[in-house]
Amino acid sequence: MSETIFAKILSGEIPCHRVYEDDAVLAFLDIGPLAPGHTLVIPKEPAATLDALSDQSSAALGRALPRICRAVQGVTGCRDYNVLQNNGAAAHQAVHHVHFHIIPKPDANQGLKLGWAPSNLEADSGATMAEALRSAIATDTRSH
Amino acid sequence: MSETIFAKILSGEIPCHRVYEDDAVLAFLDIGPLAPGHTLVIPKEPAATLDALSDQSSAALGRALPRICRAVQGVTGCRDYNVLQNNGAAAHQAVHHVHFHIIPKPDANQGLKLGWAPSNLEADSGATMAEALRSAIATDTRSH
Repeated sequence: MSETIFAKILSGEIPCHRVYEDDAVLAFLDIGPLAPGHTLVIPKEPAATLDALSDQSSAALGRALPRICRAVQGVTGCRDYNVLQNNGAAAHQAVHHVHFHIIPKPDANQGLKLGWAPSNLEADSGATMAEALRSAIATDTRSH
Repeated sequence: MSETIFAKILSGEIPCHRVYEDDAVLAFLDIGPLAPGHTLVIPKEPAATLDALSDQSSAALGRALPRICRAVQGVTGCRDYNVLQNNGAAAHQAVHHVHFHIIPKPDANQGLKLGWAPSNLEADSGATMAEALRSAIATDTRSH
């Protein structure tokens, strides 16, 4: 993986507005916020996408999220928010180092805007899909 | 918290297409998928929003995500995907039990559609915001 802007933030080469740090995780303000308080939470492990991240780093990210969400709520006064993590250019990932966005939703004009066009899951295709996913997880040699 | 449809899925009162389960986490197919393979990952702990979830349950969710993402990629053949977790009605949360969506993005018409209207973070307001967030996290009595 080529060095990303987040790798340079982790190394200190590029400054950031640091919000939280522990052994495995760094959080800092997004420089292009969708709303005030928009925060990024990243693993120190240099994985491009969530599927490539170790269980240990991903657990550390998960552990850090609630406290950062509470701080963003408390400081912005905004109760509602979205947590978003994009993987791949088609899914709107711009920096190829795993990052979770915490994006306050203060009103309809600020924050994340979501387009939601659901289909209906049919019972037969659902059963087939779920079985394939269970089998894939059961034989995943990268989980531990 | 009143009992949600996800509580009823956890208790077995309502069926689901189960994808993954461990002591703290259940994953199953969304019945209104935005694309084939759209999966929900929930904690067994009945928290409405991520800020209300225990560190332990949130870490368990984090730990489970990479393996489920790999399975969704492998089974659907779609490399790109979004992970989304909504908190509050304004942020598009419909079921008030924490859930992470894993949503494949096979093409422009399927999957999650994102509206992204960034502003610019000014250095002064960024420094003030980051300091307030660090202070809030340092004094958070619910993290452990």
